[in-house]
Amino acid sequence: MFTATPQGLCAELVSENVLQKIKVIDLSADFRIKDVKTYEHWYGIEHKSPQFIEEAVYGLCEINREKVKNARLIANPGCYPTCSILSIQPALKAGLINPSSIIIDAKSGTTGAGRGAKVQNLYCEVNESIKAYGVTNHRHTPEIEEQLGYIAGQEIRLNFTPHLVPMNRGILITAYADLVRPVSYEEVKTIYDNCYKNERFVRVLDKDVCPETHNVHGSSFVDVSFKLDERTNRIIMMGAMDNLVKGAVGQAIQNMNIMFGLPEETGLLQVPMFPCQQMRNLWEWN
Amino acid sequence: MFTATPQGLCAELVSENVLQKIKVIDLSADFRIKDVKTYEHWYGIEHKSPQFIEEAVYGLCEINREKVKNARLIANPGCYPTCSILSIQPALKAGLINPSSIIIDAKSGTTGAGRGAKVQNLYCEVNESIKAYGVTNHRHTPEIEEQLGYIAGQEIRLNFTPHLVPMNRGILITAYADLVRPVSYEEVKTIYDNCYKNERFVRVLDKDVCPETHNVHGSSFVDVSFKLDERTNRIIMMGAMDNLVKGAVGQAIQNMNIMFGLPEETGLLQVPMFPCQQMRNLWEWN
Amino acid sequence: MFTATPQGLCAELVSENVLQKIKVIDLSADFRIKDVKTYEHWYGIEHKSPQFIEEAVYGLCEINREKVKNARLIANPGCYPTCSILSIQPALKAGLINPSSIIIDAKSGTTGAGRGAKVQNLYCEVNESIKAYGVTNHRHTPEIEEQLGYIAGQEIRLNFTPHLVPMNRGILITAYADLVRPVSYEEVKTIYDNCYKNERFVRVLDKDVCPETHNVHGSSFVDVSFKLDERTNRIIMMGAMDNLVKGAVGQAIQNMNIMFGLPEETGLLQVPMFPCQQMRNLWEWN
Amino acid sequence: MFTATPQGLCAELVSENVLQKIKVIDLSADFRIKDVKTYEHWYGIEHKSPQFIEEAVYGLCEINREKVKNARLIANPGCYPTCSILSIQPALKAGLINPSSIIIDAKSGTTGAGRGAKVQNLYCEVNESIKAYGVTNHRHTPEIEEQLGYIAGQEIRLNFTPHLVPMNRGILITAYADLVRPVSYEEVKTIYDNCYKNERFVRVLDKDVCPETHNVHGSSFVDVSFKLDERTNRIIMMGAMDNLVKGAVGQAIQNMNIMFGLPEETGLLQVPMFPCQQMRNLWEWN
Repeated sequence: MFTATPQGLCAELVSENVLQKIKVIDLSADFRIKDVKTYEHWYGIEHKSPQFIEEAVYGLCEINREKVKNARLIANPGCYPTCSILSIQPALKAGLINPSSIIIDAKSGTTGAGRGAKVQNLYCEVNESIKAYGVTNHRHTPEIEEQLGYIAGQEIRLNFTPHLVPMNRGILITAYADLVRPVSYEEVKTIYDNCYKNERFVRVLDKDVCPETHNVHGSSFVDVSFKLDERTNRIIMMGAMDNLVKGAVGQAIQNMNIMFGLPEETGLLQVPMFPCQQMRNLWEWN
Repeated sequence: MFTATPQGLCAELVSENVLQKIKVIDLSADFRIKDVKTYEHWYGIEHKSPQFIEEAVYGLCEINREKVKNARLIANPGCYPTCSILSIQPALKAGLINPSSIIIDAKSGTTGAGRGAKVQNLYCEVNESIKAYGVTNHRHTPEIEEQLGYIAGQEIRLNFTPHLVPMNRGILITAYADLVRPVSYEEVKTIYDNCYKNERFVRVLDKDVCPETHNVHGSSFVDVSFKLDERTNRIIMMGAMDNLVKGAVGQAIQNMNIMFGLPEETGLLQVPMFPCQQMRNLWEWN
Repeated sequence: MFTATPQGLCAELVSENVLQKIKVIDLSADFRIKDVKTYEHWYGIEHKSPQFIEEAVYGLCEINREKVKNARLIANPGCYPTCSILSIQPALKAGLINPSSIIIDAKSGTTGAGRGAKVQNLYCEVNESIKAYGVTNHRHTPEIEEQLGYIAGQEIRLNFTPHLVPMNRGILITAYADLVRPVSYEEVKTIYDNCYKNERFVRVLDKDVCPETHNVHGSSFVDVSFKLDERTNRIIMMGAMDNLVKGAVGQAIQNMNIMFGLPEETGLLQVPMFPCQQMRNLWEWN
Repeated sequence: MFTATPQGLCAELVSENVLQKIKVIDLSADFRIKDVKTYEHWYGIEHKSPQFIEEAVYGLCEINREKVKNARLIANPGCYPTCSILSIQPALKAGLINPSSIIIDAKSGTTGAGRGAKVQNLYCEVNESIKAYGVTNHRHTPEIEEQLGYIAGQEIRLNFTPHLVPMNRGILITAYADLVRPVSYEEVKTIYDNCYKNERFVRVLDKDVCPETHNVHGSSFVDVSFKLDERTNRIIMMGAMDNLVKGAVGQAIQNMNIMFGLPEETGLLQVPMFPCQQMRNLWEWN
């Protein structure tokens, strides 16, 4: 059962009885955050099923594939967290960056704002403009912090600033962090390549190639790359993803495939819509 | 004389003879950077008139108004530097932030890429996508560093990452810096308000209002605001500007007005194109 | 007094008492249509002040300038009618076309749909799509028919099909009509030129130049041109206009200027936003 | 072999030898027009293989399916003709409309302009604007006239006016014609329904539903509908299609499938990208 319900509703409806009968993949945030108080603080509601939080598996397939296999309850990740974590985690896991220095500047298409009839989402309000929103208080912040914290092995506080971009689909992450030691491009590239070498849907781009959201448009791909800045001793980590596919239903299906022992890419091999010549080899399966 | 010439050409053509006859406002980068080696490194060309660099005034009106008045040669600022410096300088001048922690994530409409017939700037390449470019090596980096360095009273190295946004006009700056001490919203607001209280074209937005590029569309306004994050001890400074007006010809005209003793806003009172109700009081002269 | 009120409200509020005290420019449709039954049929409401309909002047300045001068009540034209009538009237007045053959295919930016919070006007609904709406029953149809009927000296029935285009501002008219006799390009060009030679805000474009809405963006200009098709014996008449300026408030101000003996262009000389090189001579006053 | 070559090149390269060895599906216009003089007049080049013109089959699958099955050389139709013909042909074939009264007003996304590095196709030139182009002389005109002429059983001359719309993909056709007799909605609806009842990729929309290009985005669907106007005795016929799929490679693949006895929809079942609730039942196979 896939649930794409308002915050709180899945937590209200799920029960031991339900979970014994059917596997649940929840696209809301109800089971993404392990700490109830953090959830209740950022979402402003009481959690009605805290007893299932520990059992629930955070369904970022590339991180938690093994746990997903036997899960009864999947917390399908948020769109921004999916792209942020996949862009940052190789460098973080390798110990290259200072966890307390992470800054994530995110940009999203307007489908991310939902389909509610609000003036702020009208065509003429969004078109020909860009703005930040949810600055310092977007709800995906604690989700990213928790997951990156597991990878770093320590608690993390970071800045996450989303922006609304005049386009339908796509998320771009530009993340900054201080390097803890001098590193070469080749060393970091190897770390990223190794991290994702067995992943069907994460493409590590070539040197000096930056992710562009149209290259993943309509697909499950996440394109990641990075750039080192010797002048400031920082790494800039970038990722592009379609928020409606890998950032939502695509990942839900990917989780379902893993849970039921299906080939992980079943139903997810739609080619990106943009006819991008230089990327053609990247959507071929090796 | 306004010169909007390819990099290097104004430096080649300017002479003592020219400057004795006519005031020059140069919209290229030739005289923006005081250190010749820095200029030559980032622009990859030899400077042909280094003897005028010291005399040239960096024409960011809000910073250098007094120097502009008597200048013979104005280096009209770059679009990104104008918006970045005006967004950051109040906090920096007041000593609130660590100068070595500054990260500028910038977003620009596509007029910023010029009108050259390049595949990468075709409608279908830009539309429905966002990407970073010039990561770690955009030429506006040293210009911002130099000007912010004067304000901080020390050399600054920072990260500047521009992004291409599917819209015609507008620049949005989202800048991050570490606070050197705890500050209240009111304290910082007073600093920003005082810094710009006599400025016709800089609007400090109200609490929790983020700049949006359409609100300045077609005008000389720069909208700035900031947000404090107690969790991470950082400040997020934001600014929006029309790159073709305040970011280019508008500022050139503003400089001309100052140089010739004209009212500074002469020819620059075009109302922003977007009919933004909540901003209506902000484009009125107090 | 400018009234931009829901249909019916101005007709409800206007009175002899009001009109004796203040001149009224009504931006709604209440006084645009002389036949009350036609108005009530297309707008679905009862007209509350039919006694003022005859007195009201249809404020299409280029057609009714003399009547506007002494009017007490102006019916400010609809956006589509303004652009349609100005594109078609020279050929119609000269007797070149069969009045019963006119077909108007119109395209409008999304500001034409208003600012109501409706799902159909959300960014993601409008973006990357085009559709017709109000096919055969758009309320601007009888307004165009009536005004063109006066010019033709006979009743006219025509097809008017508006389309919603993913852009903020601008209307483009493509109108088709059967020629009643063979004509040369030069003859028709002279007719258009003579018709608008004294008009500040109508620009007749050169041969083979088609109107583009960005060339009038933010201005009061209407760009018109035409093309003859010998194969089908038809003329294609085209016009571009900013629906929010000449199509609404700009024309209201133009009417006010005429009513009060002010220079007609007062407050209306804003240069179009798009930096269109080939048009630069066209926004210069000769 | 698929050839998507500049005009004239396929005609130059094709030969009896080639056709005996391999089936050719040509996406250029070389074999679309049966009359060599018409081709040479509109395309301005000499045809190098007139001997194959008669044999070549115009690959509009819904019209010529039987001929495609055994063809050696397919002229894959132009994008505008595909959408125009499919929108108009049911009414024309049923004898409802006057063939000499047809006017086609077409709107296309910018991929239709190709990927050449031309200033006119730059993002900032196309964005926020709409214009007609190729008025009276677009090369798809004779192709539409020829095919509709076969259906009508008489020579046809019509007006075809394409417009450039600020979006990537999609073609919308709005076609006008005089009715030769009074008809009811139900009669015409039955004609359209019967015409396409066995077609996988043509969807006849419900009453008062107008085609929108985003509903076919990324798919092989053509959405058609019509509206009757008793006031003017005309029918307005509308169609929406993705120019890059059914209007180009999708139709080429559909032709290949037919030629090789494969299920016609093989490789073409990609769901449209826009999550259109009201259309969901329409992309299901009945």
